[in-house]
Amino acid sequence: MKSESPPSIVILAGGQGTRFWPLSRKDKPKQFHSLFDKSESLIQGTFRRVRSLAGSDQNCIVVTNNAQSPLVKEHLPSAKVIHEPVGKNTAPSIGLAALYIEKKDPRGVMVVLPADQVVANDAELIRCLSKAVTLAKSSDSLVTIGVTPTSAHTGYGYIKRGLSIGNQCFAISRFYEKPNVERAAQYLESGDYYWNSGMFVWRVDVLLQAIREYLPALWNGLQEIKPHIGSAKEPQILQEIFPQLESISIDIGVLEHARNCIVVEADSLGWSDVGSWDSWAEKQPADKNSNVLLGDVLAFDTQNCVVRSPHRLTAIIGVEDLIVVDSGDALLICPRDRLQDIKRIVDELQKSDREDLI
Amino acid sequence: MKSESPPSIVILAGGQGTRFWPLSRKDKPKQFHSLFDKSESLIQGTFRRVRSLAGSDQNCIVVTNNAQSPLVKEHLPSAKVIHEPVGKNTAPSIGLAALYIEKKDPRGVMVVLPADQVVANDAELIRCLSKAVTLAKSSDSLVTIGVTPTSAHTGYGYIKRGLSIGNQCFAISRFYEKPNVERAAQYLESGDYYWNSGMFVWRVDVLLQAIREYLPALWNGLQEIKPHIGSAKEPQILQEIFPQLESISIDIGVLEHARNCIVVEADSLGWSDVGSWDSWAEKQPADKNSNVLLGDVLAFDTQNCVVRSPHRLTAIIGVEDLIVVDSGDALLICPRDRLQDIKRIVDELQKSDREDLI
Repeated sequence: MKSESPPSIVILAGGQGTRFWPLSRKDKPKQFHSLFDKSESLIQGTFRRVRSLAGSDQNCIVVTNNAQSPLVKEHLPSAKVIHEPVGKNTAPSIGLAALYIEKKDPRGVMVVLPADQVVANDAELIRCLSKAVTLAKSSDSLVTIGVTPTSAHTGYGYIKRGLSIGNQCFAISRFYEKPNVERAAQYLESGDYYWNSGMFVWRVDVLLQAIREYLPALWNGLQEIKPHIGSAKEPQILQEIFPQLESISIDIGVLEHARNCIVVEADSLGWSDVGSWDSWAEKQPADKNSNVLLGDVLAFDTQNCVVRSPHRLTAIIGVEDLIVVDSGDALLICPRDRLQDIKRIVDELQKSDREDLI
Repeated sequence: MKSESPPSIVILAGGQGTRFWPLSRKDKPKQFHSLFDKSESLIQGTFRRVRSLAGSDQNCIVVTNNAQSPLVKEHLPSAKVIHEPVGKNTAPSIGLAALYIEKKDPRGVMVVLPADQVVANDAELIRCLSKAVTLAKSSDSLVTIGVTPTSAHTGYGYIKRGLSIGNQCFAISRFYEKPNVERAAQYLESGDYYWNSGMFVWRVDVLLQAIREYLPALWNGLQEIKPHIGSAKEPQILQEIFPQLESISIDIGVLEHARNCIVVEADSLGWSDVGSWDSWAEKQPADKNSNVLLGDVLAFDTQNCVVRSPHRLTAIIGVEDLIVVDSGDALLICPRDRLQDIKRIVDELQKSDREDLI
C-alpha cells in the first residue's frame, strides 16, 4: 500500500529572520547559522533530527526561495529543494510542497517543520512525530504538535485542547494568537493549552481538501501549477502563478477554520522556536548574575545581560537587561524588552539602501 | 639679559590614558589620538597653540618615556625630547626638564603643559600664558593658570584665590583636590575658585628652590643628575637615579606648600582636561536627544548616550546614559556614571596577560 510508505519531510526555509539582526542577513538568514551547536546550523539540526523518519533523504523536501537556494544546497546537499519565485507565507509553501508529494503518492503523509527551531530531546521528537504520522495515516485529521508550556511565554501562539482521543492526543478546541502576559499566565495555569510549534503532520489529500475548502483561491492557483510539476515548464509556470497567491499562514488560513484538527502533546521536547535573541539566550548557559556571555567578554557588575562577541573583546560595566550582539560588521545594543524594535533598524537600513547590512 | 629670552615650553606626555580605553593603549596613549580635530592629535594641538611663545621649536621640550618616545618624534618631529627611564609623576618630570633649561639659562622661564588637554580659544590661551610669563620673570612666583569654572565639575582640582594683585591675577589661598558634588556646587557659586588646569609658569631657579624646600629627596636626586645633563653618561645616570625618585605630583609635592603661588585667571579658554569619555563628549556636538553619535550609528528612542563607532555600524535602541566606544579590536559599554571603573577592565586585562588589549 502506497500510504504505508514513509512520510515526506517538508522543511520550510524561506524566512528572513530579521529579529536576529545583525547576525541574520538576507544572504545568510538565521536558519543557516550555528546558533547553538557549532557543528551544525539550525536547518542542519532540523534535518538531522528527522531524517530517519523519511526513509530516504530524497523524501526530505526543503521549500525555499531562489536567494536562499544555494545555501540550502550547501547545508543540506542530499535534500530535495523546491524554489518559490518569491517568499510567501506558509499556506502557499505547504500547498506547493503537497503537490510534489501528491504526484508520488496521492495519500502520502507530510511532516511540516520550520527550519529554525530547536529541540533538545531528539528521541521524544521522533516519538511524537511518529505518533502523529500514524494518526494522519489512519484518520482524515490535520495533526499539530503541541508543546506543553513551561512558562507564560507571550511570543508563541497557543492551542486549546478539546476532547481526549487517548494516548496524549486531543481534538483541538481553538487556536490562539500570541497572548498578552495575563492571558499567557492563565493558559499556563489552566493546563489545557499548548504552544503551537508550527510542526504539522497530515496526508496531502486531507490538506489539499482543507485548502480547497478554506482557501479556494490558493487551491485554484495550485491546480494551475499541478500539471506542470516536474516538467520543463515548471519554473515558468511557478514564476507566473506563485507571486499572485495570497500570502497567508496555514494556521490562520486553514487550521483555525478546520474541524478535523488534532493536537499531539509533546511534554519534554526542550523546544524553542528561537524567535528572538531573548529566546535564544534562554537556551544558553548563564553565569551567576544571569548573564549569557559568549565569545570574548569581560563583565563587571552586570546582570541579566546577553553579550555575543565572537570577533573582539567586549567589556561591559554596570549594565542590566541589555542585549549586545556583534556580527563583525555591525553591532546591536538593545534592552531585552525592546527586541521587537530590531525590525525598525532593518527597515531603516532598507530605506537608506544599505543592502550590505540587511 | 638672559631672562628676557623666550620661555621654554615643557609638554608632559608620559600618561597612559587608561580612562580612554579602549582607544587609548600603552603603545598609543590618548595624547597621540585625534580626539577632536581629525587633522591633529591632542599633543599636536597642544604644541601648535603655544609654539609661537617659545621663539624656536628647540625651546619646546617634551618629557616622555622610552615607550612613547617614537610616537612623540612622529607627532612633534621638531621638538626636543627628554626620556624618562620610567614614568614617574609630574614633580620628577618637571624637575628633570628644569635641569635642561637651567643649563642654558639659570633664570629661564618654563611653561608647563599637559599634552592631552584641549583649548577652544587659542588667542586667550596665549594672552594668559604671556601674562604668566611676564609675572614669572619679574617675581619669584609659581604661577598657575586657573580656569573660571563653567560647571560644578567633580573631575577637577580647584584653586581658591586670595588677594588680588591686579589684572586678573591673584595670590592663591589654597589648592583643593577633586571635590564631591556639594562642594563643587559651593565652589562654583562662590566665584572665588578656579579649576586647576595643570598649566604652570615659573623661572627654573624659583621652581628648583621650591623643590629643594618641599621635596628635598627629589632635589638631591636632581643634583646628582645635573652634572651629566647633555653628556654621554646622561642616559646611564638617568637610568640609575630616576627610578628611585619619589612619584609625586607637583601640586601635592610643592604647590600646596609653597607661599609664593599666584593664579592667572582664564575665563574664556573653552578648556577641558579631556579626563574621561564623558568630558570628551561634553565638547562634541549633540543631537536633539542629547546623544553624541560619531561614525556609523543608528539610534532609536535613545537619550544622553555617547556612541563612537568609526569602524562599523552600531544600532542602538531604547537606551539612556550609556557610553559605547568601539576601537576596532575592543568594545566598551559603560553607563556615564561608571566611567571611573574603566580602570578595572585595564587591570583585569593586565592580570590575564592580554598585552595586546592594554
